Order: sequence, then structure tokens, then C-alpha cells
Amino acid sequence: MWSIQASTPISYEVALADGLFEVGHPLLGCRDQNGRARRMVIIDGQVDALHGDRIRGYFDRAGVHCGFYCLAADEEAKTFEQVSAIAHELDSFGIARRSEPIIAIGGGILLDLVGLAASLYRRGTPYIRVPTTLIGLIDAGVGVKTAVNHGLHKNRLGTYFAPRAALCDRTFLATLEPRHIANGLAEVLKIGLIRDRVLFELLAEHGPLLEHERLQGRTTRGDAAATEVIERAITGMLDELRPNLWEQQLDRLVDYGHSVSPAIEMLALPKLLHGEAVNLDMALFTAVARGRGVLSGAETRRIFGVMRDLSLPVWDPLLERSVLAQALADTVQHRGGRQRLPLPTGIGTACFVNDVTADELTAAAECLLEEENQHAQRSDGHRSA
Amino acid sequence: MWSIQASTPISYEVALADGLFEVGHPLLGCRDQNGRARRMVIIDGQVDALHGDRIRGYFDRAGVHCGFYCLAADEEAKTFEQVSAIAHELDSFGIARRSEPIIAIGGGILLDLVGLAASLYRRGTPYIRVPTTLIGLIDAGVGVKTAVNHGLHKNRLGTYFAPRAALCDRTFLATLEPRHIANGLAEVLKIGLIRDRVLFELLAEHGPLLEHERLQGRTTRGDAAATEVIERAITGMLDELRPNLWEQQLDRLVDYGHSVSPAIEMLALPKLLHGEAVNLDMALFTAVARGRGVLSGAETRRIFGVMRDLSLPVWDPLLERSVLAQALADTVQHRGGRQRLPLPTGIGTACFVNDVTADELTAAAECLLEEENQHAQRSDGHRSA
Repeated sequence: MWSIQASTPISYEVALADGLFEVGHPLLGCRDQNGRARRMVIIDGQVDALHGDRIRGYFDRAGVHCGFYCLAADEEAKTFEQVSAIAHELDSFGIARRSEPIIAIGGGILLDLVGLAASLYRRGTPYIRVPTTLIGLIDAGVGVKTAVNHGLHKNRLGTYFAPRAALCDRTFLATLEPRHIANGLAEVLKIGLIRDRVLFELLAEHGPLLEHERLQGRTTRGDAAATEVIERAITGMLDELRPNLWEQQLDRLVDYGHSVSPAIEMLALPKLLHGEAVNLDMALFTAVARGRGVLSGAETRRIFGVMRDLSLPVWDPLLERSVLAQALADTVQHRGGRQRLPLPTGIGTACFVNDVTADELTAAAECLLEEENQHAQRSDGHRSA
Repeated sequence: MWSIQASTPISYEVALADGLFEVGHPLLGCRDQNGRARRMVIIDGQVDALHGDRIRGYFDRAGVHCGFYCLAADEEAKTFEQVSAIAHELDSFGIARRSEPIIAIGGGILLDLVGLAASLYRRGTPYIRVPTTLIGLIDAGVGVKTAVNHGLHKNRLGTYFAPRAALCDRTFLATLEPRHIANGLAEVLKIGLIRDRVLFELLAEHGPLLEHERLQGRTTRGDAAATEVIERAITGMLDELRPNLWEQQLDRLVDYGHSVSPAIEMLALPKLLHGEAVNLDMALFTAVARGRGVLSGAETRRIFGVMRDLSLPVWDPLLERSVLAQALADTVQHRGGRQRLPLPTGIGTACFVNDVTADELTAAAECLLEEENQHAQRSDGHRSA
């Protein structure tokens, strides 16, 4: 009998890097020790259309020879075929195994895809994440998870593979569609709800302005709010991830909003964005918490109010019994046989529960529908008033 | 700026487990803490045909409910499509994420495939390796590497993912074709040549008997030799792997035989087995070492003699200039820009060189052809005498 014990340390940095592709910015334009500078850039097609010239100009001026591969990174293209296509591009470029980190530029889906390709290519090739969406900036881009969808299952195949660095340039958000700003704010709201009441209050106070300004800080108030929201969201996310980077602990507060939403998001394809499905899930478990008397009526109304102000959906026809029961069963399977459902116990605090039934979820969904109908009546009332 | 530092320990055991599927053997028939016992078994089709009834009987008697998935695990089926098919089977079986380790039963190719599927499924599902070939038993089965081929590239996509355990039952070798015994002995010979002269001498003395008895120990001498060869080969392999499990150090003695062979093996598909391609590579660099005067003529003749006694090829028409030059370039790319070629400096010792040219490889291949022709003449001489 032989025993093998080993340990590998990982280390990476998440940096705020506004204006990353302005001429002369030092982070990506540096040459290697051997004086060569080659990089393979894998970029979302939409980002390339909007920012490609600027990015190419940056690398050209810095004397970095780049290969570019553009891909349409939507949820339905998050497949192993894309990973295979990326691997072929890395072959063609002839990337150097250790000294030429892949540059991934795009939203959460692209970062998940390129991260998986990087983690598999020659059993691990370094890469740098440059998130271009809000959800990438404060969530998908700063962790170590990679994935593709498989069959009907979201992120069923993937790895944990840390990037060399995640470089967060919020100026990319200037060209993001408003719906994608809201999509990211859903994950910010999650951090607020599970652990950071101050962050929640910032969203409650400045949410619509942040959406309007796309976090570009066009006003003094908007700038201060955007800066604080991004910093608190990243800090909260990393504080949750750091002690549990490989998810050995299955009780994860950051799974709030991610209990029934993976199934719903896949069933709804391409209707719901990730953050929208997450928000439905957060609303559902807010209603569960209200049903159990863990949240007060006032807290519940505030939460729904902030969700609406952020243009996030709080109800969807998919929130019905059979879907919820199957989604819950999938999640129990995924969480080692227990529910481990994060449940808000106030604004900024949460606990885990393991005794939620399909009946309870169905009742909670009915409360959401009622709330939705009341909201519609209130809106009609406002309009006719 | 945020900094993330973390480390994850891994730990696994490699155990000799002869008679693993005899009724009552304790290693795989145990129930979980919760009294349930379910296992997904992924097994090579040929192994299933030969041993499937016995394996099913073992699990039945132990009260373990098993799902079986058989696959044809040859080098051409070592693709991501197979990994995807395995993932679908895991979905259908509804495997429990942490408590139901996948059981992989087969040779090196199957273990590489199932290891990759396990490492990707829900970003990591535990698995147990049960190698059924000699190459699996002493090489592919005891490490942490997983892979599929991609394009023309061998093992281009893969991970490092430790099993829970590798259980080595040499009774499986009883049904192995002789060619596959030789295939495994090539990797044993590698360990002998780079670090263990005693192991080399065991092969020199008992090689043909080991092949004849398929390491089943039908004679006292054969039993003692098989036991010592397996133990020394695994010990040598693990001693090389242990300090460098993630291959952060690219100078690897165990890469002896694996410098030009990956390209040759893929070009020759399906003609050469892995160990046969490895042996061609070992013979080639033996000739390089002889050409440099690092190995004596007597040592070189002994090495070639042992290779022939083990029924392993020492020359192949693919060993020609353009193939060798391209294969060397691929390897430099894979080894971070340097050759890092292990070269024998005697029997049981080796060094690394970084200055081998395509000319030198071509000359070495010509020496192998000459040696091959002389051997053919000697054989003819023996036959006509």
C-alpha cells in the first residue's frame, strides 16, 4: 500500500483596472522576460464589435502580437463544442504553455467557457479574466469556477481553475444594454441580502441611478455609489469564496438565488438571463421566509420593492409545482443529499434550511403571483390617477 | 485590489488488491454510513465480456445496487464525446455527488476517460480506479492525470484529478493478450532505465517468464519476480510523481519514452500501442546517448536485448526526419519552450538535455534501423544454423 499526499497552492489577484485598454495602461501590454510578447485573445463577438478596434490598437501600440478568436457567448453556446473550438485556436496560435496567458474578454458565459478551455488545454494553461459585464465584474469573473452546460443541466461539466488575475474595468459597462446592468445588479443584491445590509441600502437608494448611469459615475452621487457598490460586492463575494474555493463545504450562502434557478434558467432558455432567474429564486425564498415568519411583512415589501426598482422579475409562469419539485430534487442531488437552502432571516443575514417541501415552494410561488397582480393593479391605479 | 490565496490538500491510496472481486473481499463491497450502497460502474467492454459476470456477482452478493456502463476504450475512442456519454450515464443513474464514488474498471485509456469525466462532472465527483492492464497497474492507474485526445494531439485536453484510491488486482492480467503484457512492461522498463537498475536486471533475467506467466506467478520464480517487479515499478513511479503531482516542474524523468512518442503514436493509429510507441522513443534516445558516448556499446546492446526479449519494437518506419523534427517541436512547445529530454546516462540513471537536433535524431533512427537489420540477419543466421 502506498499513500500519496500533496497540496498545491493557488494565488491570484482581482484588481480594479478602469481604462485597461487605454494606450499605455501597464497591466496587459507588458513583454515577457524573454522580450517576446504574444497573446491569444478570446473575446465575445459583441464586445469585439464595440471595443475590438480599441483593444487591437492597445496591443499593437504595446508591440504585443495577438491572435484573436471571437465567439458568440450566449447560454445556448455554452457547450463543449465551443471549448473544443477554443482548443483548436490555441493549437493554431501555438500558445506557449506557461508564459503566454490566454486573455479572456467578455461576460460570465465567455469567462466560464474560456476558463474551462484553459483548465483543460495541456491540463492547465494560464489565463487572465477581463469581465465586460456587471455580472462578470462582481460575480463570474472574480471566482475560480469554469463550466459548460450539458444536456438540460446548467454548468454540469466544469472545473475549479484560478486565473492569473481578474482585471475589472467598469468602463466596459458603458456599452452594456440596460437589461444586462439589471442582470448584474441581481447578484449584487444577493450579496446585500445574505451578508451586507449597507450594500442593500445602497441599492435601495441608488439602484435606478446606477442603472441609468450604467455605473459610469456621470454624476458625483452616481460615481460614489457605483464605486462603493462594486467594491462592496466584490469584497463580499470574495470573502464568501476565499475559505471555500473548491466548495468542499456545501453550505454556501452565495447559493442564495441559485437553488431552483439553474433548472428554471435552462427551461426558459433563451428567455431569462442568469441574474433574472437568480432574482426569481431570491424572490421565491424571500416568500418562503415570509411564510415562515422569519422575515417581517415590511422587510419583504422592501425586498420586492428594490427588485422592482432594479427592473428584475419577481414572478414567472415557470414557478409552478412540477418544475419547482424537480428543481429542488436536482439541487438536493447536487448538494450531497441535503437541501442546504439559504434563507434570508432579515436584510443582510441568512441561514440554511433543510426542510422545505414542494408544497411550501408552490405556496410561496402563489404569493409571488399575488404580489405581481397587486403590483400590476397599483401600477394601473397610478396610471389612471 | 484583492488577493486570493488558498491551498487544497489531496490524498489517495494505491493498494495491491489481488482478488478484488472475490466474494467477500472488503474493499468495494462496503455500504455507506447511511446504509445505502449504490455505485456506478464504468467498465471496458472487453473486460466486461471476460469478467463482467464475476464483478456483477460480487456487487450483488454485497448488496450494492450498481449501474453498469460499458465502453470500447481504444485510443481512437478517447474523445470528449465519450466523456459526454459517461456524463449522461451519471445523470441517468442519479449519482450522489460525494458519497457514491464512480468505479472505473479497465486499462489506461478507460481510466483516463473516466477520470476526466469524474473530474468535470459537477466540477468533481469521486472515483476509484481499478486498472485491468499492466500499463494501468503500474503507470496510468496510479497517478492523477486524466485526458482525451483532441485533433491529432494525444492527451491534449485533460486534468489532474486524484482518485479516492487505485486498487491494483493483478489477477486481471491473466486474461490479457501477450501484446498488452509487453505494452505494460515497456513502462516498467522505463522506470528501470531512469532510476532502478535492480528493476532493469529483474526484467533482463525474468522478462520472458513474466510475459509467459502474465505475471500470475505460476512458478515460484515467476511469482517472486512478478511481485517484486510490480512493487518496484509502482514505488518508482509514485516516487517520481509525488513531489510533482501537478507537473509544475517540467523536467520529468518519467517523460523518458514520451518525448517523440506522442506524435508517433497518434500518426500510427491504430497500429502501435502506447507502450510500443514509448519503447521506440526509449530506443531512439538510447541511440542518441550511445551517439554521444554517454552509454557504452555494451550497455546499449543490453538495453536493446532486453527490449527484444520483451517483444517490444525498437524501430519503425515512422522514425524519419520530418516526423521526428515535428514531434520534437511539439514537445518543446509542451515543455515550456525547452527540450528537457531525459537521456539515459547508464542503466538506472538519466539526465536532461536541451540541445538535441533533428539531425541527431535522424542519425539515431538510422542506427536503430541498422541494429534492426543486423538483428534480422542474426535471427536468419540462427534459423539457418
